Amino acid sequence: MASSTVSFIIIIITTVLLPSLSSQLSDLFPSNNPPPFLGKHSHPIKQPNHHQQYRYETRYFSQPLDHFSFLDLPRFRQRYLINTEHWVGPSRSGPIFLYCGNEGDIEWFAVNTGFVWDIAPRFGAMILFPEHRYYGDSMPFGSKEEAYRNATTLSYLTAEQALADFAVLITDLKKNLSAEGCPVVLFGGSYGGMLAAWMRLKYPHIAVGALASSAPILQFEDIVPPETFYNIVSNSFKRESSSCFDTIKNSWNALRSEGQKEDGLKQLSKTFHLCRELTSVQGLSDWLDSAYSYLAMVNYPYPSNFLMPLPGHPIREVCKKIDGSPAGSSILERIFNGVSVYYNYTGEVDCFQLDDDPHGMDGWNWQACTEMVMPMSSDQNTSMFPAYDWDYSAFREGCQRDFRVTPRPRWITTEFGGHDIGHVLKSFGSNIVFSNGLLDPWSGGSVLKNISETIIALITKEGAHHIDLRASSTEDPDWLVEQRATEIKLIQGWIYNYSKKMKATFEI
Amino acid sequence: MASSTVSFIIIIITTVLLPSLSSQLSDLFPSNNPPPFLGKHSHPIKQPNHHQQYRYETRYFSQPLDHFSFLDLPRFRQRYLINTEHWVGPSRSGPIFLYCGNEGDIEWFAVNTGFVWDIAPRFGAMILFPEHRYYGDSMPFGSKEEAYRNATTLSYLTAEQALADFAVLITDLKKNLSAEGCPVVLFGGSYGGMLAAWMRLKYPHIAVGALASSAPILQFEDIVPPETFYNIVSNSFKRESSSCFDTIKNSWNALRSEGQKEDGLKQLSKTFHLCRELTSVQGLSDWLDSAYSYLAMVNYPYPSNFLMPLPGHPIREVCKKIDGSPAGSSILERIFNGVSVYYNYTGEVDCFQLDDDPHGMDGWNWQACTEMVMPMSSDQNTSMFPAYDWDYSAFREGCQRDFRVTPRPRWITTEFGGHDIGHVLKSFGSNIVFSNGLLDPWSGGSVLKNISETIIALITKEGAHHIDLRASSTEDPDWLVEQRATEIKLIQGWIYNYSKKMKATFEI
Repeated sequence: MASSTVSFIIIIITTVLLPSLSSQLSDLFPSNNPPPFLGKHSHPIKQPNHHQQYRYETRYFSQPLDHFSFLDLPRFRQRYLINTEHWVGPSRSGPIFLYCGNEGDIEWFAVNTGFVWDIAPRFGAMILFPEHRYYGDSMPFGSKEEAYRNATTLSYLTAEQALADFAVLITDLKKNLSAEGCPVVLFGGSYGGMLAAWMRLKYPHIAVGALASSAPILQFEDIVPPETFYNIVSNSFKRESSSCFDTIKNSWNALRSEGQKEDGLKQLSKTFHLCRELTSVQGLSDWLDSAYSYLAMVNYPYPSNFLMPLPGHPIREVCKKIDGSPAGSSILERIFNGVSVYYNYTGEVDCFQLDDDPHGMDGWNWQACTEMVMPMSSDQNTSMFPAYDWDYSAFREGCQRDFRVTPRPRWITTEFGGHDIGHVLKSFGSNIVFSNGLLDPWSGGSVLKNISETIIALITKEGAHHIDLRASSTEDPDWLVEQRATEIKLIQGWIYNYSKKMKATFEI
Repeated sequence: MASSTVSFIIIIITTVLLPSLSSQLSDLFPSNNPPPFLGKHSHPIKQPNHHQQYRYETRYFSQPLDHFSFLDLPRFRQRYLINTEHWVGPSRSGPIFLYCGNEGDIEWFAVNTGFVWDIAPRFGAMILFPEHRYYGDSMPFGSKEEAYRNATTLSYLTAEQALADFAVLITDLKKNLSAEGCPVVLFGGSYGGMLAAWMRLKYPHIAVGALASSAPILQFEDIVPPETFYNIVSNSFKRESSSCFDTIKNSWNALRSEGQKEDGLKQLSKTFHLCRELTSVQGLSDWLDSAYSYLAMVNYPYPSNFLMPLPGHPIREVCKKIDGSPAGSSILERIFNGVSVYYNYTGEVDCFQLDDDPHGMDGWNWQACTEMVMPMSSDQNTSMFPAYDWDYSAFREGCQRDFRVTPRPRWITTEFGGHDIGHVLKSFGSNIVFSNGLLDPWSGGSVLKNISETIIALITKEGAHHIDLRASSTEDPDWLVEQRATEIKLIQGWIYNYSKKMKATFEI
């Protein structure tokens, strides 16, 4: 398994979750520093793998900066990757597989979405990876520096504009290739999965179906309880060991007490093998809660190598270390032994670098501060994290401070729906698969029940964050092999029904 | 019948059609003046009828100027009319009937959409008439003068923004009334009908169904032949009398010849009883072709009183005058006698005022020059109008000249679809009625075949432009009574199914 699936995760977790966690921790640890709004892993994009097995051509498409107004604005170049080597072409209505690029460099998504590459040949499909505006090499105003300059230049970084980019690009491309009759199938994971589902709903004339993997489209407003995410993370630890859960739950107070002592920060830096001495406990807290949440998302039943190489059932291993620390170990020593499984499984790390400067302009943080307002709480009874009630006012103030923008917390549900989604879509819409692994803390914000015969929830009990989109491997457990087989069958059904309708037309 | 239904029509015809007709005529009548892009009836809005039978409260709602970016823009006040006297309220899931305000003053639409007022009591429904941004009293930047100042201030006048206005307004209103469980039913005629259909497609979570009357959602790009509109107008004359059709068809050359003579304009002004002498034949041509197209739209089988009082089968009456003019009458004298049925049926007009200054900023003209690009041609074989091939370049140049904006002629079909709509929506979407009268020249650009069991085309052979939305009257022919009864039944079905689903939830 390649090393970057976790980045899908990280982008969301560091930017959506950490603000609330940070607020929690700032309650626990009053500080003159404002709680860090921007997470430390906001820029997980790695250089594309030059040994990649996937071949594509890189092209650019000129897009209007604003699809929904007629302001005289400079256009921008949207990057997209294209592979046509397996495509059977317009004469045979060859499908077009379009991955809805999300919050990062599209080359990195292309390399890490092996499922699309794996199945394209058998479908005779073209592969398209359009990049999301304001990420990677698709920068308005000529450069990232200009695009991210301020709230005015960032103001066109929205999901609706990104969807319209995809719609305009694919319409133009099909026209140029005389491929108007070729069905488009959408793919996406995490935020990209949200885009894929929304695109099928909003642009049914553009795409015949969507595979939306680990897409928390219901993680907005009051649709799911705000405690959902942290409860799932916490339960993943509790089900392995209740004493492990208790140790973590108690560790926050221990951390606070230690930090308040004379030489406490020095002692903490030593306990946690930090390369540089802490100036506050904030960075350490972030480092710990990131690890727990990431672990829950990548809690796969077999060894994997994401951002970090990990054993199978990594939470079990973490808890073994926490519970099995030598008698007399302190709570914080146990915690250190535990998170070392996450941060230092190979044992190669001598000391840990915490990101001391988590602040900076980041695209997803902007999106979280405008449209993508996902309320998060931590329940004092069920969560192992410090208790925290979602505080929209504090969140808004953070956004005003960091970006000089006021969020629109109800906009996503107004524009895309979400409330009562089962009833709304029961007799509306078709051909969407919501795939989720129940170990994934984001699964609680996704669609977990079939809505209709064609809007399907595919659930894997042992799955975590959108592993189905990754390349198949010999390590895949049976349930993953079966899950992908089901997805392939559903996609075949979409294309078959589309072709049948088209054929019926020609025969009339 | 009240006098302003025709204005629904006029707004569209003068702004979408006349540019192309004008171009035609400018081919026939070369002139140093540019062809008038803006039609002469662009401002048909009358003062609201103070003797109206409909009671409502006028309210205002603060809207973001741009729903799709986060620019720091001034909000604007959207006007809406509300009547709750028959509403049975949230406890009984009282429906909300929402008319999608189109390109004019909302009070005028409210007064002229009697169908909604007629049926609301039996549904226990609330009635809402939100106004379309940039029309009536819903002006961004504080005034029409400011809103219409230039392309920058006008740039947020788009259908997508208007739909989002409706979505945000109704979501907020329902929340404030604890009426989240109350089903919303959409109504609209002409452009308003397009908005209603698109709103149901794009916001299925906001509304349970839409009655889209005379909504030419397919009059874009190459979906229907560009000759469609003028062919229907022409056929309406031809079916009454082929000699009438021929006389009109020949009249354009006669007009041109006369205009080129010495004293020709003076003579034409006399023949057509104009109050002021013509300076070119352009104004007269516009005046004539408007009459023919309006006549086709209001070609009802019984007397009506729209912008003009008219007899039943008005085209038949026009042709009677053209064909039955005294022996020896010239072509142009016959034409004058014919159009006098339209412009002077009561015989009260002494001389005719042509609008000599058709230029000016108008909202629909802006929309036609940006998104609402509806290609129109006139076929030399089948149309009685001068032959004209749609010339997008000339159209674009007119828009650049008049508004300093470049149209996006493919945007509407990219955003809302239209190509192959039957297949696309066969298994996607539900609960839309497209009602059309086949005498209406706009019917050719609408949906005339059932798409699925719940996306229905209701066609009346003798109907014209969205008469079904008007108040019922004792003059209504049986087919109109039946049409409305069918519409009521379909709406009842939407609400019944919605309630059934809701009830099922409560019982679980």
